[in-house]
Amino acid sequence: MNTLRVELGARAYDIHIGQGLLRSPGIWSALPLGQDVLIVSDDNVAAHYSETVEHALAGHNAALHVVTPGEQTKQLSEVARVIDQLVAHGARRDATLLALGGGVVGDLSGFAAACYMRGIDFVQLPTSLLAQVDSSVGGKTGVNHPAGKNLIGAFHQPAAVIIDTDTLTTLPDRELSAGLAEVIKTALLADGAFFDWLENNMVALRAREPEALATAIRRCCEIKAAVVARDEREAGERMLLNLGHTFGHAIEKVTGYSQWLHGEAVGTGLVMAAHLSALRGELSETAVHRVASVVEAANLPLNTHGLTPSALREAMGHDKKFKHGQTRFILLRELGQAWVCEDVDSVMLDNCLESFCA
Amino acid sequence: MNTLRVELGARAYDIHIGQGLLRSPGIWSALPLGQDVLIVSDDNVAAHYSETVEHALAGHNAALHVVTPGEQTKQLSEVARVIDQLVAHGARRDATLLALGGGVVGDLSGFAAACYMRGIDFVQLPTSLLAQVDSSVGGKTGVNHPAGKNLIGAFHQPAAVIIDTDTLTTLPDRELSAGLAEVIKTALLADGAFFDWLENNMVALRAREPEALATAIRRCCEIKAAVVARDEREAGERMLLNLGHTFGHAIEKVTGYSQWLHGEAVGTGLVMAAHLSALRGELSETAVHRVASVVEAANLPLNTHGLTPSALREAMGHDKKFKHGQTRFILLRELGQAWVCEDVDSVMLDNCLESFCA
Repeated sequence: MNTLRVELGARAYDIHIGQGLLRSPGIWSALPLGQDVLIVSDDNVAAHYSETVEHALAGHNAALHVVTPGEQTKQLSEVARVIDQLVAHGARRDATLLALGGGVVGDLSGFAAACYMRGIDFVQLPTSLLAQVDSSVGGKTGVNHPAGKNLIGAFHQPAAVIIDTDTLTTLPDRELSAGLAEVIKTALLADGAFFDWLENNMVALRAREPEALATAIRRCCEIKAAVVARDEREAGERMLLNLGHTFGHAIEKVTGYSQWLHGEAVGTGLVMAAHLSALRGELSETAVHRVASVVEAANLPLNTHGLTPSALREAMGHDKKFKHGQTRFILLRELGQAWVCEDVDSVMLDNCLESFCA
Repeated sequence: MNTLRVELGARAYDIHIGQGLLRSPGIWSALPLGQDVLIVSDDNVAAHYSETVEHALAGHNAALHVVTPGEQTKQLSEVARVIDQLVAHGARRDATLLALGGGVVGDLSGFAAACYMRGIDFVQLPTSLLAQVDSSVGGKTGVNHPAGKNLIGAFHQPAAVIIDTDTLTTLPDRELSAGLAEVIKTALLADGAFFDWLENNMVALRAREPEALATAIRRCCEIKAAVVARDEREAGERMLLNLGHTFGHAIEKVTGYSQWLHGEAVGTGLVMAAHLSALRGELSETAVHRVASVVEAANLPLNTHGLTPSALREAMGHDKKFKHGQTRFILLRELGQAWVCEDVDSVMLDNCLESFCA
């Protein structure tokens, strides 16, 4: 087992990474759990792992709340339902919420934990690659609004994150690829050597070789934990973690959050961000080609399948990364170095969008 | 004008207290406002003051959202409506929400500001005495759940608080008295000399003498700002601000948040807390009598008008102040000194409740 610490003063917490952790009594006894525990999961994940978790919580007053899988579940009315469950379970301020699932379960239930009695503890038990390398770490919680992704939410750090890499054995291929998009993103924004490693190990990752997966997860968590420790509330550096997301969120919004997985949209968004960087003369064509090749090797889409540039641009109008009337993009200077750009030329943006909408 | 500072590091802010502040151009130009501003108010308050505020915001992109007055408005669906208005107004992360009204408007819109894009700035413009002396200061925001008051919420500090004491001229008598309950509470928990002053000045306060009101508001804000600066998240000392509230919340809950004003329930709750302290032998009968006399002089109820002890006790079961199965009470050692008690005897509690339910 590997343990990383997210250094956030009074809100510091550990990320534990290893095989079979959900079945390990040691990991459970070390957790800061209240007597009352509500497990939130979705139908797919609960079918595989809820019994294991309930068994581990035998000494607690535990209940299970199961939601429908998918991005459509990330809405305020579902937060209200989780809160109703906490109330029905008699949960007090010292209760703990366990988020057992992917990004949707973590974002939704983390936000419910943030709001219930103005904040109770929650522990992330991420079971998708995307959640393990990205969404379970850093305290961003929230739900969607018809006008935009994650428009309603809170910064609420988990009390701990337990990453059991065995849970990836039951992950559908498409979701594995979606998680790989965030892995590629993390390498691209912070670590050129890790990107090189990804180029050489994408086949192993897609074949779910445990060694390769553990290496990638650990490196992503290290990078994200360091960024979050330096900029918890996204005043600066943390924005870099949104590489590919201005494009990705627009794709998701135009398609009603129902056709593309978040990671798929981010995958395409990464290539778009690289292409826009090249149009500005700040990244080589060779580098763009390398990004596209890795994204393709991860079995992620390389174009937007018939969406129009105007629809995507309009969708960017309500993106949170907007500031002072100007869309904010994360662009690349090289593979492993990202920066925040607030002066993208609109004609250049259209040219970029058109190459992916053809 | 008086200015107090709430010392909370990066979240520090000023409380400005004075006559006619809403009409003062100086106060507005000093505020940290974004270009996009949403004013949230209720029908009653908006009728008196929204034009003044909109006039002051002439250089901004401002919109007004008006809610129905009353505690029933403090619910999650109303938070969603405020967020819809922010979206419709095109509000970005640098937008500011202005809470123009009493405690309901401040709690509701402060929580919407806390959740929108994971937190935008908001400024409190409290127009009720209760909001001016208590709820607008300290960053507690939230809404009610059928199972309990403020069960859904966040700690989200305002960027500033502007207390225009002229707004009290339009406050209904009943709400003035409700605000006086929180004034009495503040004196009782922290400042015996201030309690003496209240005994001598209750007539002047009820006659709305500006001098007396300004003195009381300033002292309450000083005390609350100091407590919040030492314990922002209510890990200890801040609990003392809940004096009278375990009883008060139970009264409100049993009566469906519709018959008693919050301050009225707190007023009765203060006498109940004093009586329970005396039953435990920790406060003199004379002191209890003084509390009851001041509460009565503020025109607040002295008993629960036919509610049953069992209903009140059951209502305490979901109070946030519950911990480890034991209801938490704030009790008095003397007038001006409160403490947190977690071992109230249930027979003694019943005796106490019975004296007020007769």
